Amino acid sequence: SETKKIAVIAGDGIGPEVVAEAEKIIKRTEEVFGYSFTTEHALFGGIAIDEKGTPLPEETLRVCRSADAVLLGAVGGPKWDNNPKELRPETGLLGIRKELGLFSNLRPAVIFDCLKDASTLKPEVLEGTDLMVVRELTGGIYFGEKFRREGAGGEEAVDTCVYNTAEVERIVRQAFEIAQKRRKKLASVDKANVLETSRLWRETVNRIAPEYPDVELEHVLVDNCAMQLLRRPASFDVIVTENMFGDILSDEAAMLTGSIGMLASASMGEGAFGLYEPVHGSAPDIAGQGLANPIATILSVALMYRLTFGYAEAADAIERAVSEVLDAGHRTADIATDKSKALSTTEMGDLIAAAI
Amino acid sequence: SETKKIAVIAGDGIGPEVVAEAEKIIKRTEEVFGYSFTTEHALFGGIAIDEKGTPLPEETLRVCRSADAVLLGAVGGPKWDNNPKELRPETGLLGIRKELGLFSNLRPAVIFDCLKDASTLKPEVLEGTDLMVVRELTGGIYFGEKFRREGAGGEEAVDTCVYNTAEVERIVRQAFEIAQKRRKKLASVDKANVLETSRLWRETVNRIAPEYPDVELEHVLVDNCAMQLLRRPASFDVIVTENMFGDILSDEAAMLTGSIGMLASASMGEGAFGLYEPVHGSAPDIAGQGLANPIATILSVALMYRLTFGYAEAADAIERAVSEVLDAGHRTADIATDKSKALSTTEMGDLIAAAI
Ligand SMILES: CC(C)[C@H](C(=O)O)[C@@H](O)C(=O)O
Ligand SMILES: CC(C)[C@H](C(=O)O)[C@@H](O)C(=O)O
Repeated sequence: SETKKIAVIAGDGIGPEVVAEAEKIIKRTEEVFGYSFTTEHALFGGIAIDEKGTPLPEETLRVCRSADAVLLGAVGGPKWDNNPKELRPETGLLGIRKELGLFSNLRPAVIFDCLKDASTLKPEVLEGTDLMVVRELTGGIYFGEKFRREGAGGEEAVDTCVYNTAEVERIVRQAFEIAQKRRKKLASVDKANVLETSRLWRETVNRIAPEYPDVELEHVLVDNCAMQLLRRPASFDVIVTENMFGDILSDEAAMLTGSIGMLASASMGEGAFGLYEPVHGSAPDIAGQGLANPIATILSVALMYRLTFGYAEAADAIERAVSEVLDAGHRTADIATDKSKALSTTEMGDLIAAAI
Repeated sequence: SETKKIAVIAGDGIGPEVVAEAEKIIKRTEEVFGYSFTTEHALFGGIAIDEKGTPLPEETLRVCRSADAVLLGAVGGPKWDNNPKELRPETGLLGIRKELGLFSNLRPAVIFDCLKDASTLKPEVLEGTDLMVVRELTGGIYFGEKFRREGAGGEEAVDTCVYNTAEVERIVRQAFEIAQKRRKKLASVDKANVLETSRLWRETVNRIAPEYPDVELEHVLVDNCAMQLLRRPASFDVIVTENMFGDILSDEAAMLTGSIGMLASASMGEGAFGLYEPVHGSAPDIAGQGLANPIATILSVALMYRLTFGYAEAADAIERAVSEVLDAGHRTADIATDKSKALSTTEMGDLIAAAI
């Protein structure tokens, strides 16, 4: 089959270690399924600040744009936390989303059997939880005008939250389509009793909804959603919301599963282009020690196969391999009950590759 | 002692029923402690829309302004949910906050022994949770300019989030002072890696912090806070944050206690003026049936005594009376395990009054 190109951004902290295992999986699927990939590495985040003086070098954008998909490890760390804004990894993250047009962040929150007990929620409440937060990623207060000015009460800071109909339509349609392939329930989250952008959001959702009559729609206010996620997580299927609310709710949803260290995410652009990354961070405290769990990054590859390449068979095989290895009792340190038997990052990657 | 004036806003749904019990408690403390109060009732919310054509009549503002404190039941209900903005209860709520200068919303999240099991969190995680969210209430995106305009992508909606140094200082100082009287820990929550208002917020907190050397300060990003509340609720003491984040996090914190039906809240203005109300809503489905639990409203009176009037003795007595009645096994339907033995709203109020 046709050769596909993957841009690989290892990033900071444990990023390079987990990405190396994900690449192992990519190779393995080439052998098993006969796919053909080329990969090109690029600098991004803290390491790009150190080596190129900017978190998002032009060259990195070029590599990403020339690829069909991007695989990202993790970025950031205390080393760069006190840098001026232009020299911070987050600035690179916001930049890459905007530059690549990654308007939709898909954050599945699922529960791994072996991590059920890691949740702080009662097992009977968690039972059956399997939801997906669809977060708008290139609009809202993240990207609106920001400035300081002198006001009556001293210095004043301003952020602007802007959404237009086209932006809302695009993400909401995607959420409806995702819901159609799942349990056909969509919760649209806003603060329509206070915000004008939320009123536009809700009007747009209501206008589009009749085109998806098979999807059951509810509107949930953001404060109420933060509560309902705690009270009835299993009742949610797809949640769609704007950038800032999605930031908060997708992290809340991920944390309540207890499985946050194992969750993958996708940031999609127009067409099938996407950037795939684990939900967890760069964990600088354990970097370079072979302790990191590569599973979330490996599952990000499965997501990439499914969403960008349409390689459902291989995606299934990767997910099945992860389950098998976990079911056989293999654990990295972060999820091991007996730490003395914990596998290293590469051992875990090897086992999963072998199980494909 | 001097006669104090309380403006009483019963509101909608179960509001009138729970407020009647709170007034019973006020009377009881007049007898027991020799206080003297006058109360004046005023229309607000849905009932004010129905009777006066506006959720916040001028007369209601006059009554509140002439009082030392305001006691509020609950507002809103499906009847008014589809009204135009100017005729919605929420608009009254935002209006009363602004008009009375209620810049600080205090939301204690505590756990009632009898409701420990009602939380969806594991008891060992919840153990020891006793936190207070201090939410800025008259600034930020709630009150910034809002409008629609035509843009390239069709209709565009805009919300503006504005904070000035004075507004941030005022709420942050209050939070530090509250922390000093508690466990001396303050978490300031912002999104300083993205928002200009959050950067001003954080700078201001850092500038003021040295004046409160006995308080241990941490900065927490809002997405992380939504997670940490789930993971380690007991580790928080006081959380201070801006309006929108506070809306979400105070509800999340309340819900995780499992005791949301029993929580009181205060919205403070300059000096000791405050508006006190239960955290729960107007519960239109059970209104007028004597099923409502009046405890959150009764505890709001205790909060009023403590914060506005400095009547600590009576505040303690009310809180003790509530505990005694609950410890004796008395329950309203919402918190009863055996619903057939549940007390009515007035029976619960009578028992608590008698226990003072
Ligand atoms: C690092 C930060 C800018 C980013 C965001 O808020 O979008 C992160 O929290 C995320 O969710 O990817
Ligand atoms: C009703 C709504 C406007 C209000 C708010 O968002 O402030 C409510 O959620 C609250 O927290 O008091």
